[in-house]
Amino acid sequence: MTDKLEEFKKYREKMNEKILTSGNIQIKRFFALDTRAYEEGALSVKVKELLGLVASTVLRCNDCITYHVINAVKEDVNTEEFFEAMNVALVVGGSIIIPHLRKAVEIFEECLKLQSEGKALD
Amino acid sequence: MTDKLEEFKKYREKMNEKILTSGNIQIKRFFALDTRAYEEGALSVKVKELLGLVASTVLRCNDCITYHVINAVKEDVNTEEFFEAMNVALVVGGSIIIPHLRKAVEIFEECLKLQSEGKALD
Amino acid sequence: MTDKLEEFKKYREKMNEKILTSGNIQIKRFFALDTRAYEEGALSVKVKELLGLVASTVLRCNDCITYHVINAVKEDVNTEEFFEAMNVALVVGGSIIIPHLRKAVEIFEECLKLQSEGKALD
Amino acid sequence: MTDKLEEFKKYREKMNEKILTSGNIQIKRFFALDTRAYEEGALSVKVKELLGLVASTVLRCNDCITYHVINAVKEDVNTEEFFEAMNVALVVGGSIIIPHLRKAVEIFEECLKLQSEGKALD
Amino acid sequence: MTDKLEEFKKYREKMNEKILTSGNIQIKRFFALDTRAYEEGALSVKVKELLGLVASTVLRCNDCITYHVINAVKEDVNTEEFFEAMNVALVVGGSIIIPHLRKAVEIFEECLKLQSEGKALD
Amino acid sequence: MTDKLEEFKKYREKMNEKILTSGNIQIKRFFALDTRAYEEGALSVKVKELLGLVASTVLRCNDCITYHVINAVKEDVNTEEFFEAMNVALVVGGSIIIPHLRKAVEIFEECLKLQSEGKALD
Repeated sequence: MTDKLEEFKKYREKMNEKILTSGNIQIKRFFALDTRAYEEGALSVKVKELLGLVASTVLRCNDCITYHVINAVKEDVNTEEFFEAMNVALVVGGSIIIPHLRKAVEIFEECLKLQSEGKALD
Repeated sequence: MTDKLEEFKKYREKMNEKILTSGNIQIKRFFALDTRAYEEGALSVKVKELLGLVASTVLRCNDCITYHVINAVKEDVNTEEFFEAMNVALVVGGSIIIPHLRKAVEIFEECLKLQSEGKALD
Repeated sequence: MTDKLEEFKKYREKMNEKILTSGNIQIKRFFALDTRAYEEGALSVKVKELLGLVASTVLRCNDCITYHVINAVKEDVNTEEFFEAMNVALVVGGSIIIPHLRKAVEIFEECLKLQSEGKALD
Repeated sequence: MTDKLEEFKKYREKMNEKILTSGNIQIKRFFALDTRAYEEGALSVKVKELLGLVASTVLRCNDCITYHVINAVKEDVNTEEFFEAMNVALVVGGSIIIPHLRKAVEIFEECLKLQSEGKALD
Repeated sequence: MTDKLEEFKKYREKMNEKILTSGNIQIKRFFALDTRAYEEGALSVKVKELLGLVASTVLRCNDCITYHVINAVKEDVNTEEFFEAMNVALVVGGSIIIPHLRKAVEIFEECLKLQSEGKALD
Repeated sequence: MTDKLEEFKKYREKMNEKILTSGNIQIKRFFALDTRAYEEGALSVKVKELLGLVASTVLRCNDCITYHVINAVKEDVNTEEFFEAMNVALVVGGSIIIPHLRKAVEIFEECLKLQSEGKALD
């Protein structure tokens, strides 16, 4: 992983650990539901990750975008598919999402590069 | 169509007509981009309509939800797929979207009923 | 209950029933977490309902506001407390929430009236 | 005024009255700041009403849109200016604001009609 | 204070100073209303700070979260209360707020540590 | 330009270049519409930039705010006008936008300084 993705992942894991061991069982259950929402079902993991990516983009959350872009690349979302999904987000969400589109493209390229070098995405 | 869907459609068409003939060419172009975002491409119309539906739900817009539910049913999104997509929206967007989930389910059932009776959805 | 509150409650219950029997177990679990979030704990039900009310107001969801106003009145939130909580929402969320403040005040008065007449709030 | 605008105005005034006499002095002060924000200054009332209109549109609040459209028409905002302002809102806010654009256009036409008939807008 | 909290505080104070001396009296009054919204009244400072914290979390503003977490710790909000309030925010606001939950937990722990070392929180 | 503004501009240009050459023609058209929305028309560039600035502020996007502040200064928006526009944003959007108001003021001062030194803003 690149340094930036590595740092994102470490902070995310460290803080999730703190949250999950805080003793609040309901927050723990919410995190479980969050994970399960993207599991294979009637819809594929790939489609669900695209749903998560577009939802994260129109709601403008860079960390959520980063997370779903990584997973989308793991599910072999290609460049054309990625930009078509982002175009839906752009049309629905407007120019206010453009800074997040830039971020998404940056992460997407980083992930493609890692993948092409045979490196793990997590 | 049911009266409610019919009324939604009529108001929508009447006002779109006014907007598109207002003389503002840029708004007209935006509407064209909006339509094209959901056309067949690397991603199918079905997936794009689900992206539009989830984006509309987390942004909590009932008219947009109604529009995309109708199109999703036309693309043969089934009950299981519909609820899995809405579950992603619910987890991402939280309980604040529940009133819109209720609306989406109401429209989805109406559309399924119309479809089962062999009636047109538009 | 007044007709409007009665109608709100009926639609809410009818649609929740449909959602909970849809077969999507994760949505069902989300609804359970939603209910449990407002149960007595280290923070009282009263404080949690005020948290839910302010969150619903700044996110501008009338149905969620109605739901939490009803519960706040059940928890004996008085007029002064109600307006202080709504003032926090107004300062944080800005004038864009004023239409929702109007709605909240309307429901609050209705609930107080029902309560003063010894009528049930649900 | 048309019945719909009349109803909007009556409900607005009735509820504002209740809010302003509730005894919460801070909410009262907020309402005063809200009114003063649109008064003539370095920027004209017309420009400020357009700012309020675009802000209300991207935040998607129909009551706020109605309020600012009425005031914009009073300030002689013409059709071309109105649509250019709404186009900024549309590009910034995306297709999710289209239902609010429809509403804004409906109110704008109503106001122009009232004005052309020499009727008061309030 | 830790370096990060110190830096946050310095920038905040420097910019607030600039804003308050800009000559715009209405912005100054807004800032005064903002401060007063969290003063003791029918609701305690502690409850109001929790309202501000939850509102800031569902609206996803890290600076606002930092500000209210500091104040909440000053009001002796304990770990259990903190996580129960954040759970309301999580359920209402959905997974999109999780990055802000991580931030809130980080600041909360920092504040608790400072407090346990007998250091001032401002 | 200052280092921070320079860095903002470079990243923005680099990523826009990637996006515009990605092969997705619709995103390219959206970017064109975005540019054209602020061109001289029935409303002046100055007014349109203020509309863009207020919309960006209530939607709380720092990159968008930076972009529109730079353009506003190029259009000779003066200090009084700037703060009046920001006051509309503050009243409409509430205290949650204050961190973005701080950012806007910081960029505005930087741009005024560059301008007074006879340096280019882009």
